[in-house]
Amino acid sequence: MEKNRIRHTVIFCLRHEAGSREEERFLADGKAQLANIPSVEGFELLRQVSPKNSFKFGFSMEFADQSAYAAYNAHPDHVRFVRERWQTEVADFMEIDYQGVDIG
Amino acid sequence: MEKNRIRHTVIFCLRHEAGSREEERFLADGKAQLANIPSVEGFELLRQVSPKNSFKFGFSMEFADQSAYAAYNAHPDHVRFVRERWQTEVADFMEIDYQGVDIG
Repeated sequence: MEKNRIRHTVIFCLRHEAGSREEERFLADGKAQLANIPSVEGFELLRQVSPKNSFKFGFSMEFADQSAYAAYNAHPDHVRFVRERWQTEVADFMEIDYQGVDIG
Repeated sequence: MEKNRIRHTVIFCLRHEAGSREEERFLADGKAQLANIPSVEGFELLRQVSPKNSFKFGFSMEFADQSAYAAYNAHPDHVRFVRERWQTEVADFMEIDYQGVDIG
């Protein structure tokens, strides 16, 4: 990755039953509401498939730099999604953020 | 991501001191030895920068499908790296694998 660029990822599992309409709606709404926030690049909706952890889904997105990431965190669409959906529908989650390493 | 494609990621921390020559050597050797295994695509050496977990580095790579992933796992260069380096130099790790979701 380019210097200063950040890849923000979150893996999570939902309170909804696997394959339910509520699960699909959460994922679709999450993508629709977060991917269009102006500083978000390369948003991906993912299924976590390793049997070595218990998380079932992932969101991945990239930011040009730390200020673009901060703008996403503070954006009203993100704040509202966290408050109205994430805090009630997500059972467990973990955030992992990456930057490039210029050795190796 | 395309259907069947898998992104394999592992986040980890090392027994070596931060910024040490041993740390740099592990990262450089990991990249050199794993990125060139034939079925590996898009290998990335990453720094994990979220303060919300304790892992310090990441490897990310993609496979065309499950059989390409299996070929990597069984490849002698991977098996040797795990046995000779990973098992002695890595203090803790977590694997996260992704596939695309075709909704949302």
